[in-house]
Amino acid sequence: MKTERIEYQDGNVTLCGFLAYDETNMKPRPGILVMPGGFGLGVNAKRRAQMLATLGYVALAGDPYGDGREIDDLQEVMKEVTALRADPVQFRRRVQVAFDTLVSLPQVDPRQVAAIGYCLGGTLALELARDGAPLKGVVTFHGGLETQRPAVAGQVKAKILVCTGADDPSVPVAHVNTFAEEMTKAGVDWQIIRYGHTQHAFTYPDAATRGISWIAYNKLADERSWKAMQSFFEELFIA
Amino acid sequence: MKTERIEYQDGNVTLCGFLAYDETNMKPRPGILVMPGGFGLGVNAKRRAQMLATLGYVALAGDPYGDGREIDDLQEVMKEVTALRADPVQFRRRVQVAFDTLVSLPQVDPRQVAAIGYCLGGTLALELARDGAPLKGVVTFHGGLETQRPAVAGQVKAKILVCTGADDPSVPVAHVNTFAEEMTKAGVDWQIIRYGHTQHAFTYPDAATRGISWIAYNKLADERSWKAMQSFFEELFIA
Repeated sequence: MKTERIEYQDGNVTLCGFLAYDETNMKPRPGILVMPGGFGLGVNAKRRAQMLATLGYVALAGDPYGDGREIDDLQEVMKEVTALRADPVQFRRRVQVAFDTLVSLPQVDPRQVAAIGYCLGGTLALELARDGAPLKGVVTFHGGLETQRPAVAGQVKAKILVCTGADDPSVPVAHVNTFAEEMTKAGVDWQIIRYGHTQHAFTYPDAATRGISWIAYNKLADERSWKAMQSFFEELFIA
Repeated sequence: MKTERIEYQDGNVTLCGFLAYDETNMKPRPGILVMPGGFGLGVNAKRRAQMLATLGYVALAGDPYGDGREIDDLQEVMKEVTALRADPVQFRRRVQVAFDTLVSLPQVDPRQVAAIGYCLGGTLALELARDGAPLKGVVTFHGGLETQRPAVAGQVKAKILVCTGADDPSVPVAHVNTFAEEMTKAGVDWQIIRYGHTQHAFTYPDAATRGISWIAYNKLADERSWKAMQSFFEELFIA
């Protein structure tokens, strides 16, 4: 497997993504965009890109902030996320440029692309879907479901799978229900999996090191949601 | 594959189940109880038992009413279901005797048993779990989630997977949320998958022939939920 740093632009912000793929495969193949959470592009998203590459996909982990910047402090994360979300057009652009980068790669079949995302990255992946990007599918893991620009009927091309923890205070059941209604009204093919006894950031093995009471790794929910994603991709990328 | 009619008793009611298994396999193996919906034990549950047998399980489709009786008329179904549910102890007994029959079979490893159920049968499978039966897991497909005897903390041994349609008027989101709270309080390992644009009876290919406006087959939700069940069983029956 080959991994490489890949730079791309959002206006004058230089973003530093992380690409993983099997360099011995010469055929264009499905590409998966991986959008990281509020801590920035770190080990978790990079590991997911590598896991996807071992499954045969070309995976690009995107950079939400620029210069591949990682943030440790929760208050700083909140500040950055709030700033990024302030302008909904700019918010979408940050994921659009990552998507454009992925589909332009010679290794990628541009008709066979999906996006996954974690926390903030889940929200970004959903914004890309709401924007009508030519995606086969979107999968979110403990992703935020709220939006300033709800999906418009007939515009969303992606099928959507949401994997969410029942005890995640940042994704309460009210958000889940509102999201389901939004997707239903917009005619989107959607599925939501709720995992019991599962908090925010349940896919981050290092969650406990963050010192945040309402986030926790959950091995079972991590493995189940990853397997659900694989089943979903098998469905999307057949034919 | 061998299929056979198998009789068992609930008091003085003779129940006629349908057993399916690979008769060339001599080893005890996981057993799956299949509880049918309110129309009684018909082609849908029998087909599921056969599908499970091809996956290597010993599958017993239970009889909810006695004499393997099938009911066509919705009003008659409602009457029978109401009668069966009137006494919650009797309601549970109807599925307990099916479970006891399955685990007593020489082909079945009694420590490796799960139950699945459709509509009324989903409710019955959940009642078996709430009762503390030694099940590895329960999967429901458009099953009713309400109960007169909520799960008691520490008593439920089964892991639970609920597959439900977002547009099923018999399983509204309020029931889903109440069920999630019940399972969380009782410390049960639970997952709920909600499928968008999916009505009641979504796994019944013959749903349209029933002349009931609020039921409909949904091929995608049918296939997705069956695959989710298979993943779940792979997890339950490893080791």
